[in-house]
Amino acid sequence: MKTRAKKTSRRIYLDYTSSTPVDPRVTLLMKKVEGICVGNPNALHEEGRSAKKIFESSRKSIADNIGARADEVIFTSGATESNNLAILGLYNNLIDKYKKLGKTPHIISSSIEHKSVLEVLKHLESKGVSVTYIDPESDGTFPMKTLRKTLTPDTMLVTIMHANNETGVINDITEIVREVRHARRKLNMTIPGTPYFHTDAAQSVTYVPIDMQKVGVDMLTLHSPKVYGPAGIGLLYKRTGVEINSILFGGGQEGGLRSGRELPILAHGFAEALNIATREMSKEVPRLTKLRDYMFAQISKIDSNIKINGHVDNRLPNNINVCIPNIDSEFAVICLDEGGVACSSASTCMNTSDESYSYVLEKIYGDKSCATSSLRFTLGRFTTKQDIDDCIKILKRVLLLQWNK
Amino acid sequence: MKTRAKKTSRRIYLDYTSSTPVDPRVTLLMKKVEGICVGNPNALHEEGRSAKKIFESSRKSIADNIGARADEVIFTSGATESNNLAILGLYNNLIDKYKKLGKTPHIISSSIEHKSVLEVLKHLESKGVSVTYIDPESDGTFPMKTLRKTLTPDTMLVTIMHANNETGVINDITEIVREVRHARRKLNMTIPGTPYFHTDAAQSVTYVPIDMQKVGVDMLTLHSPKVYGPAGIGLLYKRTGVEINSILFGGGQEGGLRSGRELPILAHGFAEALNIATREMSKEVPRLTKLRDYMFAQISKIDSNIKINGHVDNRLPNNINVCIPNIDSEFAVICLDEGGVACSSASTCMNTSDESYSYVLEKIYGDKSCATSSLRFTLGRFTTKQDIDDCIKILKRVLLLQWNK
Repeated sequence: MKTRAKKTSRRIYLDYTSSTPVDPRVTLLMKKVEGICVGNPNALHEEGRSAKKIFESSRKSIADNIGARADEVIFTSGATESNNLAILGLYNNLIDKYKKLGKTPHIISSSIEHKSVLEVLKHLESKGVSVTYIDPESDGTFPMKTLRKTLTPDTMLVTIMHANNETGVINDITEIVREVRHARRKLNMTIPGTPYFHTDAAQSVTYVPIDMQKVGVDMLTLHSPKVYGPAGIGLLYKRTGVEINSILFGGGQEGGLRSGRELPILAHGFAEALNIATREMSKEVPRLTKLRDYMFAQISKIDSNIKINGHVDNRLPNNINVCIPNIDSEFAVICLDEGGVACSSASTCMNTSDESYSYVLEKIYGDKSCATSSLRFTLGRFTTKQDIDDCIKILKRVLLLQWNK
Repeated sequence: MKTRAKKTSRRIYLDYTSSTPVDPRVTLLMKKVEGICVGNPNALHEEGRSAKKIFESSRKSIADNIGARADEVIFTSGATESNNLAILGLYNNLIDKYKKLGKTPHIISSSIEHKSVLEVLKHLESKGVSVTYIDPESDGTFPMKTLRKTLTPDTMLVTIMHANNETGVINDITEIVREVRHARRKLNMTIPGTPYFHTDAAQSVTYVPIDMQKVGVDMLTLHSPKVYGPAGIGLLYKRTGVEINSILFGGGQEGGLRSGRELPILAHGFAEALNIATREMSKEVPRLTKLRDYMFAQISKIDSNIKINGHVDNRLPNNINVCIPNIDSEFAVICLDEGGVACSSASTCMNTSDESYSYVLEKIYGDKSCATSSLRFTLGRFTTKQDIDDCIKILKRVLLLQWNK
């Protein structure tokens, strides 16, 4: 019996949600400013000023891209820090007010958020904050009706991701904003201005246009290495008027909200990456949607019991997450890798060995069956139809091997 | 009357303490691994594993460099985050124990620490922590005798930088460790194991050998863009057995102590930068010392009233910080910049417009005179004798213009 899938000589990378390679155009542009960004952007001299100029023009470019003001963009080290800053920063800013009124702040989130939201919330629960984790519908969408019922006068924050990193299912953040605003007007809030709404849009921004002027989100997280930009930088958009406290203390960079060395070269790459994504979105979304639907159709042909996890259409155009009967997803990922295909079982943004199944799929289905037997293929800018065809061949071999076991 | 110093066509960069340019050898090595570090280091597939391998071998290389174990190296976004993690992380880990015993934790630091330490301490003071800021001697050195008198059974942490970023004066951390250990044995500490000792060695590591096995420091901060490595990465060394809490919550990377996307390419550059620094230290230190002493002698010739700030010899080999009578240091920095020289007045790691004088020099002298009329020239790997000679000519012109005002 053969125990391994035949190894192809070339690699088929279908894990763009875990990490996007840096676009060569971004790399090129970063190289161009390397010689300009020598000084510390806070220095008074030419070397400092040149670096500052690159840094601030990158901020302006990103702000323009998402319909924000430049001073609403806070650069961070990445999405994890942005999510921490949004949630902890707001908590630190408001907790004394709640305490004075003898109230406990309340946060609403979903049970399928990224760990960089869930773990912050767990930490706040240990400090006495009340958190409601709303479970998704069986198609992975956020149950809007539950949100209205869950909002209370003490709700300080609603934090719901724009698109889920595992299923790619897109949440209607405009609708969430409407609910949040409705609560602000109707609920006689303990703290005026609450509840605030934060969303992690790290996965969606490449595929769904985001315009801060239209959508009315209070805080939004973006991450450079999810949009073909360099790793080491991300941002938190914070609407003017929303007050948060810093979580890192020091030199007072980023308007006092994020101390630490400014990163002009990385910011420049991040800005260009967002530019490219925005510019190419109208062509890339239909191209990937077509590829994705083609791939799912091919997978379905292998076995009709294979079903897609999450809503079939209301999902990012690059995401295929399928529940495959009688496989061990981690073992399948390893076999596919040996065959030349890079894909994923659960979220790759975790480093904890105790959770090898997908808590997202567990919440969606209410049990662990699909959570341990699903595969996520995420396509990207450099994915071709040939990649899909080759992947399907390898997947077929891997599944037949697993089913024969 | 001429109002500007004559502009030279070439730039003389003498602000290496604010920021070191990335060494071209580091850039080259980073480029080599760009194609290997495509995947998320947490992914199971080849792209992830390759990135992880680069990342972990970088950690090992750095650990070997400083006499640490690989699992004692926690990668962060930079020195600010490392200092925050060391101090807040320890506080968060121990505060409940102090509270249970009805005690207030006490921290000892110096009044001339970097803002990324001072601002964290200010934040902790607002939470009730008692902090003693020890003033430096008039030569900028740390008064060791005061330390012993200041240690109490409630002292949780001593945090003193290895070398000051403004004056370059080096503190004897071996001696501090001795005092800290003496307290641990003799003072009947409220929490066994305390006080811990943390030091920010971001500025010193290029010039002073650091061996964790010999020095007995509990936590130590390093920063890549201070050692000719890429910006966006730093580290906290944490001795095995020292327990701290995470300050960023999420995927649980870095042994649960620093969640967020791992940065293999930046780590690789950081590791190589430290390798080069260590390898070249024995040649570079005497070369820079000679240049520094030569430069100070030349500056003294301009006016005999110009004096060096901080100890003349017990300082980093690249640091010249001079108090110049009757000048406005910020204006001088701007004039020097126009003349082609990049140098600095106070710390450049601050973004607050309300502090344009040097709080370090204010503390050293006990008044603001030198704090507003000092210049810092910091030499580096690419500084030549010609740079110094040219700088002296320009400085002479700038000073004569200022004195004629």
